[in-house]
Amino acid sequence: MTTTHATSTTTTPLVADTTEVAAHPQRYRVLTGDRPTGPLHLGHYLGTLRNRVHLQALGVETFIVIADYQVITDRDRPGEVGVNVRELVLDYLAAGLDPDRTTIFAHSTVPALNQLLLPFLALTSVSEMQRNPTVKDEATTAGISSISGLLLTYPVHQAADILFCHANLVPVGADQLPHIEQARTIARRFNERFGGGRQLFTPPQGLLSQTPVLLGVDGRKMSKSRGNGIALRDDQDVTARLIRRAVTDSERHITYEPDRRPEVANLLLIAAMCTGFSAEQVAEQVGSGGAVALKAVVTEAVNEHLRPLRARRSELAADDGLVRDVLRTGADRAGTIARRTLDDVQDALGMRY
Amino acid sequence: MTTTHATSTTTTPLVADTTEVAAHPQRYRVLTGDRPTGPLHLGHYLGTLRNRVHLQALGVETFIVIADYQVITDRDRPGEVGVNVRELVLDYLAAGLDPDRTTIFAHSTVPALNQLLLPFLALTSVSEMQRNPTVKDEATTAGISSISGLLLTYPVHQAADILFCHANLVPVGADQLPHIEQARTIARRFNERFGGGRQLFTPPQGLLSQTPVLLGVDGRKMSKSRGNGIALRDDQDVTARLIRRAVTDSERHITYEPDRRPEVANLLLIAAMCTGFSAEQVAEQVGSGGAVALKAVVTEAVNEHLRPLRARRSELAADDGLVRDVLRTGADRAGTIARRTLDDVQDALGMRY
Repeated sequence: MTTTHATSTTTTPLVADTTEVAAHPQRYRVLTGDRPTGPLHLGHYLGTLRNRVHLQALGVETFIVIADYQVITDRDRPGEVGVNVRELVLDYLAAGLDPDRTTIFAHSTVPALNQLLLPFLALTSVSEMQRNPTVKDEATTAGISSISGLLLTYPVHQAADILFCHANLVPVGADQLPHIEQARTIARRFNERFGGGRQLFTPPQGLLSQTPVLLGVDGRKMSKSRGNGIALRDDQDVTARLIRRAVTDSERHITYEPDRRPEVANLLLIAAMCTGFSAEQVAEQVGSGGAVALKAVVTEAVNEHLRPLRARRSELAADDGLVRDVLRTGADRAGTIARRTLDDVQDALGMRY
Repeated sequence: MTTTHATSTTTTPLVADTTEVAAHPQRYRVLTGDRPTGPLHLGHYLGTLRNRVHLQALGVETFIVIADYQVITDRDRPGEVGVNVRELVLDYLAAGLDPDRTTIFAHSTVPALNQLLLPFLALTSVSEMQRNPTVKDEATTAGISSISGLLLTYPVHQAADILFCHANLVPVGADQLPHIEQARTIARRFNERFGGGRQLFTPPQGLLSQTPVLLGVDGRKMSKSRGNGIALRDDQDVTARLIRRAVTDSERHITYEPDRRPEVANLLLIAAMCTGFSAEQVAEQVGSGGAVALKAVVTEAVNEHLRPLRARRSELAADDGLVRDVLRTGADRAGTIARRTLDDVQDALGMRY
C-alpha cells in the first residue's frame, strides 16, 4: 500500500531548467489544467496547448485537470459546464493530446483528490491563502470577506491537484509562481509534520512559459470571457472576420515595435508563431501594405496553421461517445492514483481503523 | 438517479419542537458527531450520548460522524487518532447505540461527503465563515489570518455533514445554533441557485439540549482536554478518587443553590441525573453530612449508574474486530448515501459528462 517517492532532502529550485526537462523527460510528471469556461482560443493554443503536446512527444507523463468546480468560484451559476467540458476535451484531442498517454479528467469525478483539500487546509493559514495573487486580485476588488470560500481556498485545491499525482512540474506564467510556492510549502509541511521521516510529497517546480502573452482583436489580453480571441473551433470565415476587426494603427509601413505599436506587433507575433518566421520577417513581408495586407497575411497564417487541427476536430466531434470515454478513462486512472495517495496520507495521519 | 426530497417551500423554525419530534420520530433524521480527541466523560454521556440513545429508541434514524480531520484543525499533530476513534466507538456502543440502527462513520472514510465541501464553499462568503462562533473564538485569540484554512472552513464542512444525508435535526447547545443557521443558508442557496425549482436540500433544525452544562472536578466546564471529567471507561476506584478531589465549599449543610454554590450544585446535579431524583432531593438526603457525605453519595450514584455501561464496555473491548467492523459498515452506508447526494448535486450543477 505504501509507495516510495523521492526521499532526497535536497531542495529543487522553484523554476525548472527547461534543458534539464528536455534531457530527462522520464524524470518529470506534469500537472496542468483549465477551467471549463468556454472554448479555447489561439492564445491558449500557441501559449499552452502546443507546449503540452510537445511535452507529451518528449515522453513526459502529463495529467490535465478540468477544474469544473472552479467555474462556480466567481460566478453564481455554472452555466453550460457540460457543453464547455466537451468542447475543451475536443480542443485537447484535436491539438494532439493523446488520452492514452495523457490523463484528462474533471475535478468533480475524483473525490479522493478533493478530499486531500482537508489535510492540506490544516497546513495552510488563512493569510497564506489571501496572499495568492488570484485571490488577492479578487479580494482587492471585492474585499476579502465578501469573496467565496471556494475562491479563498483555491490555492490549496490547486496544491491537491499537483500533489495527488505527485507531479513535479507545473507549466505556469511568471505571475503564477506563488501558486507553485504554496504547493511546495504544503508538500514540505506535510512531510515535516506527518511524514515520520518519510518524504511522501515532492515539492513541485514551475515550468515557465516561453511564449509572450497574446492580445485579442480589441488590443486587450486575449481572454475567453472577453470574446476577443479566435477560438480553435471557429471556421476560416469567422477567423477572417475577427482578424479584419482587429485594432491596429494608421501607419502604412508595418514594423515590429512591440512598445510603440503593440497591436501591430501582436498580429505580427501571431503570424510568426503560426509560420515559424520571426515577427520581424513577417513585418518585412508585409512591408508597406498597411493593416489590410497585414491582416490578410495573419488570416492566411492562422487558417493554414489551424487547418489540420480543425479538420481533426470536426471528425472527433462527430463521435458521440468519444469525450465521455476519454473522461471516464481519465477519471479511472486519476481516481486510482488519488486513492493510493489518500491512503498514504491517511496512514501518515494515523487514520486507519 | 434523482430522489425526491421535501418539496415544500414553507420554512421550519431554527429550533425544533421536542414534542413534535417525540410525536413523529419517523419524520426526522439526526446528524450528530464528535471530534475524536479523547475518551468521552460523564458530561458527554449525561448531556449528549444518553439523548442519542433515547432518539434511537424513539425510532429516529441517526448518523454519527467521527470528525477525524477536525482533530488537526487546531493541533499540529493528529496524535493517537486511531486509538481515540476506537475508544469513542466503544463508548458509543457501551452506551447503547446500535450500529444496525445508527450509522457510525469517520469523516476520512467518506470522500463523496467531503467533496460536497467544494460546491458548498462556493455558496459561502469568507465573512460568513468568520462569523461562526467557534471560528470567531479562535480568531479572537489568534487573529483571523493566522488560523488554519481547515478551521475557517469548518462551518461549511459541518453543513456537508448535515446535508449529505439529508438530516433535518441536529442536537446542539444554544451557542451552536449559528452552525445550524449556516447549514440552513447553504441548503436554501443551493436550492435557489442550482435547484431549478427543485428543493434538493431541506434546511435542518437544531434540537436544543435539555441538560445543563456540567462542571469538572476543578469547578470549570467538564472537558476532554482539561482532564477534569470522569471518563466512561474509568473504573469505580478512579471515579471515587476523582470525585474526592472535587472542589466544594466549607458549609456543612448541603443545599442546591446553583448561583451561590455552583460546585456543590454541580455535584448534586450529577447525582440527580444518575439517580432520577431532583437535585433538591439529593441535597436533603445528604443534609448536614458536608462535602464528604455529598461526595460519597455522588460516587455511589455515578458508579451505580455507569455499572452496566462499563460492564458492556469491557466485553465489547475484548472483541478485536468489532470497532473496525462497525466503522466499515458505517462507511459503506454513509458512502452510498453520500454518493447519491453527490450525484444529485452534480446533476444540478450540470456536471455530467
